[in-house]
Amino acid sequence: MDRDWGSRDADFVDLSQRTRRRLLALAHGDGTHAAVPLQGAGTFAVEAAIGTLVPRDGKLLVLVNGAYGRRAAEMAARMGRAVAVLECAEDQAVDPAALTRALADDPAITDVLLVHLETTSGLLNPLAEVAAAVATAGRRLLLDAMSSFGAIPIDLRAVPCSAVMASANKCLEGVPGVAFVLAEVGHLAAMAGNSPGTSLDLHAQWRGFEDTGQWRFTPPTHVLAALDAALDGLDQEGGVTARGARYARHCAMLTGGLGRLGFHAYLPAALQGPVILTLRDPGPPFSFPALYDTMQAQGIVLYPGKLTREPSFRIGCIGAIDTDDIARVLDAIGAFMRHGSQAAAD
Amino acid sequence: MDRDWGSRDADFVDLSQRTRRRLLALAHGDGTHAAVPLQGAGTFAVEAAIGTLVPRDGKLLVLVNGAYGRRAAEMAARMGRAVAVLECAEDQAVDPAALTRALADDPAITDVLLVHLETTSGLLNPLAEVAAAVATAGRRLLLDAMSSFGAIPIDLRAVPCSAVMASANKCLEGVPGVAFVLAEVGHLAAMAGNSPGTSLDLHAQWRGFEDTGQWRFTPPTHVLAALDAALDGLDQEGGVTARGARYARHCAMLTGGLGRLGFHAYLPAALQGPVILTLRDPGPPFSFPALYDTMQAQGIVLYPGKLTREPSFRIGCIGAIDTDDIARVLDAIGAFMRHGSQAAAD
Repeated sequence: MDRDWGSRDADFVDLSQRTRRRLLALAHGDGTHAAVPLQGAGTFAVEAAIGTLVPRDGKLLVLVNGAYGRRAAEMAARMGRAVAVLECAEDQAVDPAALTRALADDPAITDVLLVHLETTSGLLNPLAEVAAAVATAGRRLLLDAMSSFGAIPIDLRAVPCSAVMASANKCLEGVPGVAFVLAEVGHLAAMAGNSPGTSLDLHAQWRGFEDTGQWRFTPPTHVLAALDAALDGLDQEGGVTARGARYARHCAMLTGGLGRLGFHAYLPAALQGPVILTLRDPGPPFSFPALYDTMQAQGIVLYPGKLTREPSFRIGCIGAIDTDDIARVLDAIGAFMRHGSQAAAD
Repeated sequence: MDRDWGSRDADFVDLSQRTRRRLLALAHGDGTHAAVPLQGAGTFAVEAAIGTLVPRDGKLLVLVNGAYGRRAAEMAARMGRAVAVLECAEDQAVDPAALTRALADDPAITDVLLVHLETTSGLLNPLAEVAAAVATAGRRLLLDAMSSFGAIPIDLRAVPCSAVMASANKCLEGVPGVAFVLAEVGHLAAMAGNSPGTSLDLHAQWRGFEDTGQWRFTPPTHVLAALDAALDGLDQEGGVTARGARYARHCAMLTGGLGRLGFHAYLPAALQGPVILTLRDPGPPFSFPALYDTMQAQGIVLYPGKLTREPSFRIGCIGAIDTDDIARVLDAIGAFMRHGSQAAAD
């Protein structure tokens, strides 16, 4: 990130094209899909995929069991797309049988959006079953893989997806500022002019990369260089499966250690993904803001936001950390709980 | 940029709010405007400003004398906004008298968009006169200050603007990945729900900053930290006027030195801004691609794109460089011209 790349220079064109190829290869999309990087946050890529790939006269069914599914439905409606929602509780997985019934009941639905790993709770939805149900019904699947890409295998040869949306800064361990869509080329090519806007027009962005190798508009050069380096790190670790296994170790350590401290996981173990762990808030005298501040003072930054409808807090399992870091977190939370209990008893 | 900021952490909230205040202060917008940073390229901020601030039943008049004005008009039309264009030649400044007539002739026009410094040619348009014409006619002005902000004074106390759009990575000398809009608060507050999309909804982005201090969606934390440091650099240099004067010295050196090598400036001196210099392509045996490659091998990266309708090439005057760098560029181009002429004569 210390180098100032010329954004139209041949070196940076090479970097961009190499990164596109590497992202595509992670999901085995070579020959069927194209990687289209996009400046900005992951949400931008979700909006771009909906706006570009759901036809203006199409209808999007969003499978909702958390805040990110709800947001996708709101974004689609804001763009004027017809939207239906199939919602279940935040601690339940999307139900492929219910999806099959919903698709049979509404022939107007052209596209389905699934959040692979709902960051709201950490729940891992059943991608293979959902993709099979969508394909069997002859519809297209948009997969929001923001919190899974790089840690949970996604094989586009076996799992039909019209698009996979993700960003650099979660399981790929890059820095924030760039997102991307892996889009099925046949459908993408047919969607010229479908996007309601210019900046988030994935078709035009893709044509730019294909025609000139360049980004249409100024790219975040340093952020992209960091992503390229982060992909080196993923390779060195042994790829997606090895990374997912490391995160799963962190998640299991946190679940066990926090359980011994009296915290209960929000999700049943069978639905828990390895990326982020949600704990039920035990109520007073426990105070998450006090825990957050105490951890922050020790250089441990938790995620302050809470998204589930029930009182909870979350601890991430991802990033360039290892089991020693998780042990340190558990020690720090243990000390906080002892001190907090004592303070409450005083 | 080496620090991993927690994007919802209090430290990063402080950084974001400080940066917002500093950007606003550069244009003397305190009390009238709000700085709304936006993830992505500068074009995203232009689209966000048009989509959020031009009412759906409004009409935008775009003043065009280059590619960036044309793009703004295309973006507005793509969003479904009514658009009119007042175009002049790329080597002529926007004419305030023609603007006054156009506004009188078309009462449906609610907003006018001016590109302050057209990067196509380097031309500096007459902001004060245009702003006065727009205000006199009772319309709003959107100012694309992408290539001027930080080097050309913009005083919102004296120059009425509904919005000023710019990015971190030109005259502010930050890195690419974040843009921003300084929006007049009264009008911005009235535009809830006006944006056709979510990601580029400036009103919602502004409310996020005002209500929680946070970005709605994951911000490019490293890029924002770099912008904060870049604003320190601007202060240390003596502010906008001092920076503009440095760039003007670079531009004058380049114009003189390249003139002695036989190149002619594309613009009349009176219209030349201090940011980027366009030279007429003298034709064979001169070859810009050969010049580009020769310079690149010496660590001097020119801008490879050409935007004017006539054959030309451009050399930037901006960035963390000084007169020694400009002298080195002139020496290198001089050597190229002697070698290139000799090679052509062989």
